[in-house]
Amino acid sequence: MIFMEKLRARWREGRTLLCIGLDPELERLPSTVREGREAEAALVAFNSAIVDATADLACAFKPNAAFYEARGPAGLRALVRTITHIHERYPEVPVLLDAKRGDIGYTSAAYAHAAFDVCGADAITLQPYLGREALEPFLERADRGCFMLCRTSNPGSGELQGLRVGEAGEPLYLALARRVAVEWNARGNCGLVAGATYPDELHQVRMAVGDLPILVPGVGAQGGEVEATVRAGLDDHREGLLISASRSILYASAGQDFAAAARREAVQLRDTIERLRTG
Amino acid sequence: MIFMEKLRARWREGRTLLCIGLDPELERLPSTVREGREAEAALVAFNSAIVDATADLACAFKPNAAFYEARGPAGLRALVRTITHIHERYPEVPVLLDAKRGDIGYTSAAYAHAAFDVCGADAITLQPYLGREALEPFLERADRGCFMLCRTSNPGSGELQGLRVGEAGEPLYLALARRVAVEWNARGNCGLVAGATYPDELHQVRMAVGDLPILVPGVGAQGGEVEATVRAGLDDHREGLLISASRSILYASAGQDFAAAARREAVQLRDTIERLRTG
Repeated sequence: MIFMEKLRARWREGRTLLCIGLDPELERLPSTVREGREAEAALVAFNSAIVDATADLACAFKPNAAFYEARGPAGLRALVRTITHIHERYPEVPVLLDAKRGDIGYTSAAYAHAAFDVCGADAITLQPYLGREALEPFLERADRGCFMLCRTSNPGSGELQGLRVGEAGEPLYLALARRVAVEWNARGNCGLVAGATYPDELHQVRMAVGDLPILVPGVGAQGGEVEATVRAGLDDHREGLLISASRSILYASAGQDFAAAARREAVQLRDTIERLRTG
Repeated sequence: MIFMEKLRARWREGRTLLCIGLDPELERLPSTVREGREAEAALVAFNSAIVDATADLACAFKPNAAFYEARGPAGLRALVRTITHIHERYPEVPVLLDAKRGDIGYTSAAYAHAAFDVCGADAITLQPYLGREALEPFLERADRGCFMLCRTSNPGSGELQGLRVGEAGEPLYLALARRVAVEWNARGNCGLVAGATYPDELHQVRMAVGDLPILVPGVGAQGGEVEATVRAGLDDHREGLLISASRSILYASAGQDFAAAARREAVQLRDTIERLRTG
């Protein structure tokens, strides 16, 4: 199954819009996970426990490449092993690699190979600044998903993204959203990233892009509210979102019960989203 | 020495504005390098030979992370070993990691650690789309260089970068260039990226940013012309550029003489730049 079909099946049959971020930091892992293990083994053990405890609740898993690169080659091995674990045990749950890549076409081809073939990701997040042409090596992989950064969740995201562009004077992020929906999405494999910390802007993006999937980071540790996110972001089918939480789930408990605590947190978030979505 | 001092010393004492891109692709390496070697060893052997043959001609070496990630953990090990080789043998030549990273602050901190501490890079290229606040974990490392993508060398770079913004209606890339020079450069460690394929736009950027260093990819394989680049990009001290070539140097010969051929190509390019610069 291609990425977009997998994702829709999770929304519909899996009844979940919750995306779980796998961003492990060694110094924040429970001591029971770290003790007696090298970095790579500790990261894999932690991720596998989180994945096993939450896979039925997730519409996607989203490892962020930064937290693996920070551990060097061992971290990259842990990333590949984590994705392999998900594919083997839960082939119905797609993996969205949050890598925020983007380079000239010749180099984007190498990045696309790294993400889709070496790591085995079903989808990736991309930087739009170089334009569609530069991202073609990602976009031409019709079976994979490409999520373009649009209105990001950080406090200073308006600096460039909010600049008024063109004759209509609309903000850059909205001009980009329209372009992605109309032009970049020729193969039906595009999505966007819009932070939960800006529900008004998320709503503007939704109005501009029809039923394109939107990845929404920023609930939980970053302070975005679930209710506002769901109201602002649902599409006409009352789906279309990947509402992503990472730290609030991963570190729900620092003790031996970390996986059970992660599950409780994920159940609560998934159920809250479902209530709002179907209510 | 901090990055900006190292770079200026290379411009002045080293008499070179040539930046050499280390973007090795296994299938393009000479068979004498590949034979009997695993991927990691072949990449390191190739890079080391290129570095040893050209270090006196380079104001910086610029490995692009994509070509290492495409080989998985072994590629990342090759990247670290290549940078270590440069630091040990040619500590006067800084390493600019072309990684085009950018994420929310919390995650940028992990990327900065990966680039500066795990890989040991002296400088990095960054995506500006998330704004200055998100890039603070890079910018606050005053001893390292931060090169923001501004007007990139690819054919489609105008799609977003050329959009007219604000009341003045200037293109986005120019509005960004001014912001970087005035605000983002508080610690004196910023530079910009502007492609050799757009000399007019490079000149606009130079006019807007004073003597900020500009990394200029795109001469050689991408078709940018050296003379136009030098005329458009020099600062008032007749320096300020890192003119980058990769494939035209790395693959100057596919035979056993690849390192000597790379040196010939680098000498020619360095000398051409010097003639134009001092002429």
